[in-house]
Amino acid sequence: MIRRTLLSLFAGALAFGLTNTRAQAGENDFSDVKTQVTKEHDQAIKRLQDWIGQVSIAAEDRGYPEGADYMIKLLKEAGFQRAERIETSGKPGVFATLDAGAPKTVGLYFMYDVKQFDPKEWSSPPTEAKIVDKPGLGKVMVGRGAVNQKGPEATFLEALHAILAAGRKMPVNFVFVAEGEEEIGSPHFPQVVHKPEVEQALKKCVGIFMPFAAQDLDGMVTVTLGAKGVVEVELTSSGELWGRGPLKDIHSSNKARVDSPVWHLVKALSTLVNEDATEPTIEGLTKNVRPLSATEKQMIDTAARRLNEADAKKIMGVKKWVRDISWTEALQRMSGEPTVNIEGIIGGYTGPGGKTILPHKAIAKLDLRLVPNQTAQAALAALKNHLAKHGYGDIDVNMTGGYDPTTTPADSPVVKAEEAVYNQHGLDPVVLPRLGGSWPGYVFTNPPLSLGASHFGLGHGSGAHAPDEYYLIESSNPKIAGFDDAVMSYVEYLYQLAK
Amino acid sequence: MIRRTLLSLFAGALAFGLTNTRAQAGENDFSDVKTQVTKEHDQAIKRLQDWIGQVSIAAEDRGYPEGADYMIKLLKEAGFQRAERIETSGKPGVFATLDAGAPKTVGLYFMYDVKQFDPKEWSSPPTEAKIVDKPGLGKVMVGRGAVNQKGPEATFLEALHAILAAGRKMPVNFVFVAEGEEEIGSPHFPQVVHKPEVEQALKKCVGIFMPFAAQDLDGMVTVTLGAKGVVEVELTSSGELWGRGPLKDIHSSNKARVDSPVWHLVKALSTLVNEDATEPTIEGLTKNVRPLSATEKQMIDTAARRLNEADAKKIMGVKKWVRDISWTEALQRMSGEPTVNIEGIIGGYTGPGGKTILPHKAIAKLDLRLVPNQTAQAALAALKNHLAKHGYGDIDVNMTGGYDPTTTPADSPVVKAEEAVYNQHGLDPVVLPRLGGSWPGYVFTNPPLSLGASHFGLGHGSGAHAPDEYYLIESSNPKIAGFDDAVMSYVEYLYQLAK
Repeated sequence: MIRRTLLSLFAGALAFGLTNTRAQAGENDFSDVKTQVTKEHDQAIKRLQDWIGQVSIAAEDRGYPEGADYMIKLLKEAGFQRAERIETSGKPGVFATLDAGAPKTVGLYFMYDVKQFDPKEWSSPPTEAKIVDKPGLGKVMVGRGAVNQKGPEATFLEALHAILAAGRKMPVNFVFVAEGEEEIGSPHFPQVVHKPEVEQALKKCVGIFMPFAAQDLDGMVTVTLGAKGVVEVELTSSGELWGRGPLKDIHSSNKARVDSPVWHLVKALSTLVNEDATEPTIEGLTKNVRPLSATEKQMIDTAARRLNEADAKKIMGVKKWVRDISWTEALQRMSGEPTVNIEGIIGGYTGPGGKTILPHKAIAKLDLRLVPNQTAQAALAALKNHLAKHGYGDIDVNMTGGYDPTTTPADSPVVKAEEAVYNQHGLDPVVLPRLGGSWPGYVFTNPPLSLGASHFGLGHGSGAHAPDEYYLIESSNPKIAGFDDAVMSYVEYLYQLAK
Repeated sequence: MIRRTLLSLFAGALAFGLTNTRAQAGENDFSDVKTQVTKEHDQAIKRLQDWIGQVSIAAEDRGYPEGADYMIKLLKEAGFQRAERIETSGKPGVFATLDAGAPKTVGLYFMYDVKQFDPKEWSSPPTEAKIVDKPGLGKVMVGRGAVNQKGPEATFLEALHAILAAGRKMPVNFVFVAEGEEEIGSPHFPQVVHKPEVEQALKKCVGIFMPFAAQDLDGMVTVTLGAKGVVEVELTSSGELWGRGPLKDIHSSNKARVDSPVWHLVKALSTLVNEDATEPTIEGLTKNVRPLSATEKQMIDTAARRLNEADAKKIMGVKKWVRDISWTEALQRMSGEPTVNIEGIIGGYTGPGGKTILPHKAIAKLDLRLVPNQTAQAALAALKNHLAKHGYGDIDVNMTGGYDPTTTPADSPVVKAEEAVYNQHGLDPVVLPRLGGSWPGYVFTNPPLSLGASHFGLGHGSGAHAPDEYYLIESSNPKIAGFDDAVMSYVEYLYQLAK
């Protein structure tokens, strides 16, 4: 749920030359591994393309349990001794381990599902993962899941292939968990992570990370020390639920004497935010909110100086921030303020022209983003209580997904290793206290695991959730890593973590 | 736009026997015409079925100008000496005349367009007009336009066929106008009616009427002395129009710093009605509203005693009226109160589950119903002014159709003749000051024409705008006229008008 955000969040410029800074002496000499990466390139690309062809979409109940089984196959090929399906009340997760007899164990979080797509909107078939030229970037792979998240994940797995092919011992052990419901809000992922055996295995980890194409169009990277939580809900107002209004669509002349479930929903929604819809007004929602600390504000001040406001606006097609606030305030709100967003709304006649009906039903889809110390369950309860108190208790509130915010300390091993590798490449990452988007890191960062959890990886891609999603394979821009260089960044990261 | 309303409005019981009361002596002996009606029955039904097969839907730009040409063909077959297309800025209308050398001239208003439909929702193909058994009613024709309005219109035309076939001289002359845009709010119908030649011809009329299947399931009929006006508008809120919010759908995490066009629309809509959405709060909208007169209230009191409240609620699936008002108040509001209704609303992601986007656009379709002395233009201006004044001036307000209210005096010849024919059939019509729905009668009742305008016809049908729309062909219920008896009601009406 976060991929698109990062790329639109951070745009800046930082001089950077991959080729000039990678070669290191001694323990940082991975030329033997690099030789294998080059040798295996075509095979690795084919492996990613095949994986993109195996589509799993939870919202459409498509590709289960095949997606999990395919994930298992990929893990076994990459050297995991054990890899198996973990059944949940929803779609299956995957648990796997690779024991290298190393002193340290690293946690891995993958998703094998992808977002829905409409092939008509794509310039090449989204399941064929074609390689096409993208001016200014190089050769990119276009397909659903290319960057979110199969591309970076396959890149990471190729690092394991290459390390083994070079005749090396894996520098760390792995405990791997994956889910097939990330795109619907990870409703059953806790059942995977907190299965006793899995939880026991994860406890041994120094931290956990997800492969991620971190570079923006300028090659720059950002490290976030957490993410907002999220609650996705569907609000349904209907004559049937309300006991007022009609049971079916009726002629609109009856508006004179019959209540309207659509108006009922509009009026209910209107109470959830203030006049300009910039602040939640759901009673009790924000009572536990912890404001940004002085340290966090300092991080944001630094980030605001380094990140390019005009670029960020341009990418989104945005002329003004809410209430015409400054760039610093905009970044503060992304890290520190809870939100109430309408993802979509529908009711009645929506075709061409008009149709004189009084509709019997309307639905709004909302997402609420949460900051420490809000929780998903308390936010849901606050929403329900608020609606009931204001005379909208009949409106059905169906939570379709969501979870708590997640926070990882700046000195967590997974974060320190990230920064070290980025620095080796001449990259000085922008550090932000919290991502405005969400990912289910809370299952790792909350008790009982209390692990640091982060994203890492060189490389670039864009278009998560959108048509023509892509992942950079052969870079024509020296600032940005292509597939093979991104593989090497994972090799370096693992050796850094092993230290 | 009114057909569905009438049938849901009025449900009651009145003992009635068509066959016992029709035969009259002397000038009311139409047995020669009836013989022709019986003889031509199959041909007339076939003619109606073929007409239903010729679909014209303005919202889909389907069946133009063929629908107008087909209308002309039907008119010529029924004896009109002149029938021609009247081009407008939209879809063509039809103007026709039948000069019988009679002292009186009667105006006719037809529509040749029908409402959109989805064949998947129908139990038989909507353009095939199949005859099927309907328990308790008899044989009905199922098709789009069956009752709204081709069925009653074809029934009327068969009356002309039969009068001529019986060797009679037409008792009145006709001036005929039809439109092909009734279902989108008659935006160009004034261009037909006020074309100098057409207007001149209409001025000669004693009044104008539209054929209409007036009988409900109890055989009862209602006479309305007018109808509300209507304004249909589409409200669009978008980042592009607003200059705030995004130009395309962006990740919902940006809600923290980017304005939402969907919220903007919801907040704007919320200002248009009061808390329970029962009263318009659009500034200036209701300033010219003429309250119901004592006479009108008296009509409604009588109607409330005769009409069955429980049946009216049951048909719509409504348990309670707004604010739990009484049946009399409900009828008063239908006749006397302006409304602001949401026909439909759409924005953002509306598929299964959620999708974490901040949509760049949302649209609401509204209809405003108007009473004397409101006008469509003033209502539109009030809406626009209100939005501008409350900070929503960026929201595009596109009027897709509409017109002023219409009122016809109780002593208008077309109304008196209706009541006379109904009375001859033992029917004592319920009289209401105004229909809660709308039809473009204002073009006739407003200056310069200032003609009485009404609906008339025995017969029954239902499902206008809905799947399985039907029109009764062979009645198994002695209280309700089938096709041939409905034809005869028009014969009687014309002779009554000629008196």
